Amino acid sequence: MDKGLLVVVSGFSGAGKGTMMKRLLEKYPGVYALSVSATTREPRPGEADGREYFFVSTEEFEDMIAKNELIEHARYVNHYYGTPSGYVEKQREAGRDVLLEIELQGALQIRKRYPEAVLIFVAPPGAEELRRRLAGRGSETEEAIAARLNRAVEEAEYMENYDYLLINDDLETCVEKLHALIAGQHMRSREQLPFIHEMKKELKALVEGE
Amino acid sequence: MDKGLLVVVSGFSGAGKGTMMKRLLEKYPGVYALSVSATTREPRPGEADGREYFFVSTEEFEDMIAKNELIEHARYVNHYYGTPSGYVEKQREAGRDVLLEIELQGALQIRKRYPEAVLIFVAPPGAEELRRRLAGRGSETEEAIAARLNRAVEEAEYMENYDYLLINDDLETCVEKLHALIAGQHMRSREQLPFIHEMKKELKALVEGE
Repeated sequence: MDKGLLVVVSGFSGAGKGTMMKRLLEKYPGVYALSVSATTREPRPGEADGREYFFVSTEEFEDMIAKNELIEHARYVNHYYGTPSGYVEKQREAGRDVLLEIELQGALQIRKRYPEAVLIFVAPPGAEELRRRLAGRGSETEEAIAARLNRAVEEAEYMENYDYLLINDDLETCVEKLHALIAGQHMRSREQLPFIHEMKKELKALVEGE
Repeated sequence: MDKGLLVVVSGFSGAGKGTMMKRLLEKYPGVYALSVSATTREPRPGEADGREYFFVSTEEFEDMIAKNELIEHARYVNHYYGTPSGYVEKQREAGRDVLLEIELQGALQIRKRYPEAVLIFVAPPGAEELRRRLAGRGSETEEAIAARLNRAVEEAEYMENYDYLLINDDLETCVEKLHALIAGQHMRSREQLPFIHEMKKELKALVEGE
């Protein structure tokens, strides 16, 4: 069995990443695993430890950094966020493609440490549509929406750093595109080195046996 | 409309590239264009000028090299083979993905001159299967089969240089995989720079207008 891929999914807040991941996992059970991040922020109502996040203390988080147990981590608004390596590696070894829904800073760390990772940026079809989606949530103040759009301006500067750009116009189409895109990445030569080595060996044996 | 991709398809003689290309073009009319190579070798019975190859004289071919009218060229067994750039560029501008069924030497030239090209290597599931397919053609002598296998040993050394490796076990499955793979390549960020620039501009305008 092939080792699963490391797939980073980033995108503007409001681009629909969360819904897309959820749908992808539902449609293809057993194929993907969603990495759960650790964070030092407080759980919000409805969030469960180990489901949305692993909620840990600052001391525990810094201990994980010191022990090199995180494949990436970042600080936002005085809180740590990071990806524990144990779960990711276990799932990849089991042949599942692991999805990391993380932000720019973490994605750039992954790019450096795991050159084989697949980096995907999810964007809405346009800026106006992004604002509409953010406003449509209903839960955000005008200030919060403005802050998210300001952050989107910063993030947009790094869109080219991602391998792929997925434009989220329609959820189902987008989920299918994402699935096909990831399936295609298993065909990369770098993922098939055991096959290549075997083929070389077999061909040589065949020619020498002629 | 997006500019079409430059897709190189190489593989061992007997891997089934030709059949696969033909089926891909049939199934998705208008999506792909198959580049026709120029060659100085004589036409074989049933081959038509402009269909299998453009048959040209050595002088004409060397003139094309001098005028930089070939995107790649190579010499095999005292004959030139090369890809005229005019057709390729016209088809790409029309949004069609251009398939170049060429050999290793040409593929490596394309890799250097067109870093954005997608290089795909087609291999049978194993060496024994390759020999079976070569023998199954019926038209080849034992010596010719041995020569093709020897060449496969050399070519196998370069399989890792290709971006993707497509294992041709079943024709229809393989054609679908190839189609999905190429479709996915259109989602590369580098193919979507106009969208990225537009998104940056729109976001800035939106934030400044708030």
